[in-house]
Amino acid sequence: MEDTGSRPLDTLNAARNKTIMLDLKNGYRYVGKLKAFDIHINIVLDNAEELHNGELKRKLGTVFVRGDTITIITPA
Amino acid sequence: MEDTGSRPLDTLNAARNKTIMLDLKNGYRYVGKLKAFDIHINIVLDNAEELHNGELKRKLGTVFVRGDTITIITPA
Amino acid sequence: MEDTGSRPLDTLNAARNKTIMLDLKNGYRYVGKLKAFDIHINIVLDNAEELHNGELKRKLGTVFVRGDTITIITPA
Amino acid sequence: MEDTGSRPLDTLNAARNKTIMLDLKNGYRYVGKLKAFDIHINIVLDNAEELHNGELKRKLGTVFVRGDTITIITPA
Amino acid sequence: MEDTGSRPLDTLNAARNKTIMLDLKNGYRYVGKLKAFDIHINIVLDNAEELHNGELKRKLGTVFVRGDTITIITPA
Amino acid sequence: MEDTGSRPLDTLNAARNKTIMLDLKNGYRYVGKLKAFDIHINIVLDNAEELHNGELKRKLGTVFVRGDTITIITPA
Amino acid sequence: MEDTGSRPLDTLNAARNKTIMLDLKNGYRYVGKLKAFDIHINIVLDNAEELHNGELKRKLGTVFVRGDTITIITPA
Repeated sequence: MEDTGSRPLDTLNAARNKTIMLDLKNGYRYVGKLKAFDIHINIVLDNAEELHNGELKRKLGTVFVRGDTITIITPA
Repeated sequence: MEDTGSRPLDTLNAARNKTIMLDLKNGYRYVGKLKAFDIHINIVLDNAEELHNGELKRKLGTVFVRGDTITIITPA
Repeated sequence: MEDTGSRPLDTLNAARNKTIMLDLKNGYRYVGKLKAFDIHINIVLDNAEELHNGELKRKLGTVFVRGDTITIITPA
Repeated sequence: MEDTGSRPLDTLNAARNKTIMLDLKNGYRYVGKLKAFDIHINIVLDNAEELHNGELKRKLGTVFVRGDTITIITPA
Repeated sequence: MEDTGSRPLDTLNAARNKTIMLDLKNGYRYVGKLKAFDIHINIVLDNAEELHNGELKRKLGTVFVRGDTITIITPA
Repeated sequence: MEDTGSRPLDTLNAARNKTIMLDLKNGYRYVGKLKAFDIHINIVLDNAEELHNGELKRKLGTVFVRGDTITIITPA
Repeated sequence: MEDTGSRPLDTLNAARNKTIMLDLKNGYRYVGKLKAFDIHINIVLDNAEELHNGELKRKLGTVFVRGDTITIITPA
């Protein structure tokens, strides 16, 4: 997740097809390849895994994460 | 739920008539065939089942889920 | 509550004058005949009953339910 | 609170000058004569009483209730 | 806080320069003279006092209360 | 923080360069000189101090406070 | 984070490429160099560190923080 511009969405755009990590308000974390996002920060990951308290909970394949549940997005 | 485009709603569109799983902020999960959605991520499932803590709670037929209660959407 | 279209509101429209069940974020459930709704999912039921933990609490006649308190809507 | 139309606000409009009951997210209930409302479901009641756990707490005269705190509105 | 019109903001307008009471979601209450308000129900009171559990906590002079924290507004 | 107009933002405008106190939903309080604000009630204070339960926690210099976390604004 | 204008976003603009500290509603703190922000106060930091209760938790490199989770932003 390289910074390539002056807007936050530019940073997400530069992360397409790279592995990122989403932390949610409910304490869950999703790790996967960034396939799609929109201005609401709704995000679709491929090859996603769900983690809780550092433990792998589920392998999910594709996952759609609603933007308003996300706190931070980081490179995995 | 195959990824076919660069916007999250494209991913939902590709999942029409397929079985998906919705996780809600209140811990409930709904599994059913995706019939309809909109930009608020309001979703209608057919042949839906309600689960809580991994247990089947109710068979619901059609269910309308308000978008702002959803955290993630995954293939079932 | 039959599915007749590709938008969630089409599903609500098809349920007019039929008995539906609304589950709220606070755990209350309202069962009644769907008389009116709008894009915010504000809903008016006729001949409504209020339930909590599966028990009938009140017979309400007409009830207006504010959309942002609703989690799911199902056929009764 | 008679149903006279297909939109939820029509139902509120038909309830003007009639006694209604508002239930709030915080568990408080307000009963009074409906004097005014708007699209946010902000509501003004006249001759209002505040109840909590079924007990009368205060006689309030006029009360302005902010719409986003309301869960349901019913005839009193 | 006299009712003089059919919109909730008309009721607030009629209360200008009169003493009103604001109840907040966090349980605090503010009593003072209504000096200003807007469509978000942001409110400015003059000669305001802060109360909690019925006890006077602070004399505040002018106070700006953000609308989304307010539950009800009543005449003092 | 003198009242000079009929809109809440006029009151904030009149408080520019004066010391004000912001109370947040999380119980923290920020005291400093009002340098900037916008219609979302995002606020920038200079020479700011952070307090919690009446105790000074940090001297912050400039602080940007997101509007939706604020409950009330008062003169210090 | 110098104050250079009368709007809160001017203050953020003046802090570009400087080290800032973000406090979140969930108690986490992120410290890093401000690379990007938008009107929703979505923020991208470079060379970011995550802290909780004053302890360093993770070194994150680039982090995208969703604006609605932020309470305050200060110079580090």
